[in-house]
Amino acid sequence: MAIFVALNSPEVDVIGLTTIFGNVYTTLATRNALHLLEVAGRTDIPVAEGTHQTFLNEKKVRIADFVHGKDGLGNQNFPPPKGKPIEKSGPEFLVEQAKLYPGEITVVALGPLTNIALGDFHYHEMQAVQLDPEFSKNVGQIVILGGAFAVNGNVNPASEANIFGDPEAADIVFTCGADIIAVGINVTHQVIMSADDKDKLASSNGKLAQYLCKILDVYYAYHLEAYEIKGVYLHDPATILAAFLPSLFTYTEGVARVQTSGITRGLTILYNNLKKFEEMTEWSNKPSIKVAVTVDAPAVLKLIMDRLMES
Amino acid sequence: MAIFVALNSPEVDVIGLTTIFGNVYTTLATRNALHLLEVAGRTDIPVAEGTHQTFLNEKKVRIADFVHGKDGLGNQNFPPPKGKPIEKSGPEFLVEQAKLYPGEITVVALGPLTNIALGDFHYHEMQAVQLDPEFSKNVGQIVILGGAFAVNGNVNPASEANIFGDPEAADIVFTCGADIIAVGINVTHQVIMSADDKDKLASSNGKLAQYLCKILDVYYAYHLEAYEIKGVYLHDPATILAAFLPSLFTYTEGVARVQTSGITRGLTILYNNLKKFEEMTEWSNKPSIKVAVTVDAPAVLKLIMDRLMES
Repeated sequence: MAIFVALNSPEVDVIGLTTIFGNVYTTLATRNALHLLEVAGRTDIPVAEGTHQTFLNEKKVRIADFVHGKDGLGNQNFPPPKGKPIEKSGPEFLVEQAKLYPGEITVVALGPLTNIALGDFHYHEMQAVQLDPEFSKNVGQIVILGGAFAVNGNVNPASEANIFGDPEAADIVFTCGADIIAVGINVTHQVIMSADDKDKLASSNGKLAQYLCKILDVYYAYHLEAYEIKGVYLHDPATILAAFLPSLFTYTEGVARVQTSGITRGLTILYNNLKKFEEMTEWSNKPSIKVAVTVDAPAVLKLIMDRLMES
Repeated sequence: MAIFVALNSPEVDVIGLTTIFGNVYTTLATRNALHLLEVAGRTDIPVAEGTHQTFLNEKKVRIADFVHGKDGLGNQNFPPPKGKPIEKSGPEFLVEQAKLYPGEITVVALGPLTNIALGDFHYHEMQAVQLDPEFSKNVGQIVILGGAFAVNGNVNPASEANIFGDPEAADIVFTCGADIIAVGINVTHQVIMSADDKDKLASSNGKLAQYLCKILDVYYAYHLEAYEIKGVYLHDPATILAAFLPSLFTYTEGVARVQTSGITRGLTILYNNLKKFEEMTEWSNKPSIKVAVTVDAPAVLKLIMDRLMES
């Protein structure tokens, strides 16, 4: 849904997709990215396959395949895509594009932040290959769907899924010094597409809307089961809008860190700067990011619906 | 202040004080407890000295002596008390009283929860002496000043001081199955005694009010420095009121856990039961507690002022 919103937004020039594990394994995410570009008739856009392991090289990654189905696309058994990913890896592609167009590229990160952490030098001491020491300066902005700021998570009471997928990567990215907006589930849980909205999508003539209606049943069933609501959270498309219509949200600024051990592994904590602490803290002398705190939910929902119903 | 409010409240029968490190070392806390009872003319009340080490037997404990002064009493150089603590330790006294009066004792815990964790059997596997397997059932209620629920802490962005003082003890107490109310700084930061309120105390005839005004300057100076406010948070006296006038607060119920490692050591996370998680979590199948979410701050402030100004 987020990819389709981006493709149908005149404000946006989509220069490439990178893939990552999360709802499915990275290999399948790559296949799905290629497939979706074919559905949208935009095979001119390159897909760069991301990493298959976490920042700490863990091969075991968490796959939440109960959210969008085993195939990540509502268990629809679509045929394999005709296209192939480019030679460059996801991190390589990110580094290359940021260097080619310094300050102009917006990375919208809708999964675990492994690819981005791999592209960033500054705190990247655990990997043999340091791709680019300048990435965090070259990139224009990183807009992140991730975190549960001052609310319960969606993997467990402490942690949101994208951050939980690679907490070490997230902590590196949050503190890398790039211009960053984080949109957490404290905000995206306010943007809900109801069952009626889905009917509206279904009755439109847009081919992307028609396609989406086929794959959304699993996502609706998951929300009914997990949250007892007859609607779905529009995490990813809402975050896409934050990238080019940031005034649909309000923000607070501060240092955000990620807990990497124990029962709250994956927890995001934003320091609000209200107290001057007596002792040095793990938040001291780190770069700040912007964290979304409110959203104009009706406006975001309407924009998403409108863009999806264009053909 | 909390002790004086309790002593001046007809609803309360203070049957003993136990001491713990936090703002000063336990030895000095014991001395101060005896001193305060002498000031109040209540030397009939026993003082049981608490433990000097954390639940994990760490000798190094955090002492925040910048909050109330080196002596814990506004650097007033009061003479030593005449009285002595009883023979029984703090944990022994708690266990004894709860057994003597099953279901009738309220423990108001205004510091780290070490004494209480030591009195509780169920999760107490690291200590040689297991004082009482039935403590969590015998105790009537435990009212805890502790935690920063969905807000920044006061030791660092993650952690509140009483929980930070002994996170292992706090996690044990929160999950021990007793009837528990936790009042965190998300609530107590709403109860502020202004500089004007202090002037009002000073102009009253109450001997306890007069005494308090002498020792409060350090606490006011600390708030001006740390929070840039000309007032002080009434954490402890507000929590005393929660013990016998609980309707001054509203509560939510859920499982609360404490993070014990990493940069968010001491963080408190309450599971709000809104999502049914796909996987088992560290909050699953644990007993719930009540956590304060709102407070009638004007009513709480007025009650504290009134009780302190009685002679």
